[in-house]
Amino acid sequence: MSGIKKIFSSRSDTNGIFFMRMQSILGFKPKEISHYEKAFTHRSLGLKKEDGNPLNYERLEFLGDAMLGAVIAAHLFEAVQGGNEGYLTKMRSKVVSRKHLNELGSELNLLRYVKANIPKENFGVNIHGNLFEALIGAIYLDRGYTYCKKFIYKRVIEPYVDIEKLEGRIISYKSVLIEWCQKEKKTFKFDTYEDTGKDTVKHFAVRLYIDGKIVAKARATSKKKAEEIASKRSFYAFQRQIENK
Amino acid sequence: MSGIKKIFSSRSDTNGIFFMRMQSILGFKPKEISHYEKAFTHRSLGLKKEDGNPLNYERLEFLGDAMLGAVIAAHLFEAVQGGNEGYLTKMRSKVVSRKHLNELGSELNLLRYVKANIPKENFGVNIHGNLFEALIGAIYLDRGYTYCKKFIYKRVIEPYVDIEKLEGRIISYKSVLIEWCQKEKKTFKFDTYEDTGKDTVKHFAVRLYIDGKIVAKARATSKKKAEEIASKRSFYAFQRQIENK
Repeated sequence: MSGIKKIFSSRSDTNGIFFMRMQSILGFKPKEISHYEKAFTHRSLGLKKEDGNPLNYERLEFLGDAMLGAVIAAHLFEAVQGGNEGYLTKMRSKVVSRKHLNELGSELNLLRYVKANIPKENFGVNIHGNLFEALIGAIYLDRGYTYCKKFIYKRVIEPYVDIEKLEGRIISYKSVLIEWCQKEKKTFKFDTYEDTGKDTVKHFAVRLYIDGKIVAKARATSKKKAEEIASKRSFYAFQRQIENK
Repeated sequence: MSGIKKIFSSRSDTNGIFFMRMQSILGFKPKEISHYEKAFTHRSLGLKKEDGNPLNYERLEFLGDAMLGAVIAAHLFEAVQGGNEGYLTKMRSKVVSRKHLNELGSELNLLRYVKANIPKENFGVNIHGNLFEALIGAIYLDRGYTYCKKFIYKRVIEPYVDIEKLEGRIISYKSVLIEWCQKEKKTFKFDTYEDTGKDTVKHFAVRLYIDGKIVAKARATSKKKAEEIASKRSFYAFQRQIENK
């Protein structure tokens, strides 16, 4: 890595400004700063590793993308208990969309750390997201999965992954479902009854019929709650059809 | 999780045969066996969790798929230094293809652990791969990323991920390139010269020209080696075009 040392020597060997800036973005001390230097090395510099292969951040994007995908998947798996695997996949692709990654990279102003041989105007629109992915790749190489996860929670999940927002800010699933049934000329009916069973607290059970078929059941401590839960469940079941309207 | 306890009680509560079989497949002791029980619970049983959401392995597939993708990505990143991100993506999709996952699940005979309410003949062809993914999802929940990685190295990477095979068993990149150039009526020329420089050992440098343009350079201790390295580099550059022939 003699090439990269020369390129970055002005910042990493002297007063450690790059190191300190990375530490501030990452929230921890880098162990091996060269991974991060690579994450900001643009192909236009034409650098090569000792084995002759190109030295730039592009391969790190592949690695970072995979780690981001895994961490977001694990988070959604826990956070969205009602979503089936198709729904989780769709939610994940919203979180890791090119547009969102570009926003994340842009907000951290990652562009200012890039070393390149072309004017910054010539970078494509996706450079922000690419740098963000490459940075995650560098974290994996430097510190492994756990630190990737910490970073992604701090910079992606905690500030931006609002499950309700991702689900389209649906406040009442019942109203969405009723509206959809009206449009589609489907019948919609709740069959709600007290079902306290062995519980000490009063409980209600509900069956939701659409076009005369039971599409969801639920049980809760109030009629309203039970109906909303049943509506949410059947919303998931019909989601593709509802969202295509 | 009362439902699952009942279904699995015969094997997990008595003599622990399921536990021992899992331990043998996994190569470590499960901490929380219920994750693995879930990984073999088919939707046809119609089980529900206490919150009313379905209890079966389908969501675990989503999680396992993400972890598999991340572990394979990290492995290929290290193992295929010459591949750019497009190439790595393509290699990964070969490793995690539906066909390959089905083979992996089938080899471990995961089907015999499934609890279902339908005859085994009615499972789709992809059940083997789905169970394999779900098992990885269960490992993540039980033991985290590091154990997923260990398991995937043991069951996928070590026995099956042969980089050369994935690259199509190309023995001589030079011969592949020459053949391609002949078919495509492109000129192919090596410019090879001694370039020992400051090295104590004799070195050769080579420039590879296709249609009169330099497409790759290399340097090695023999002409033959240098030419092969340059050929390999330009093979990567032209790969999509070559493989579409």
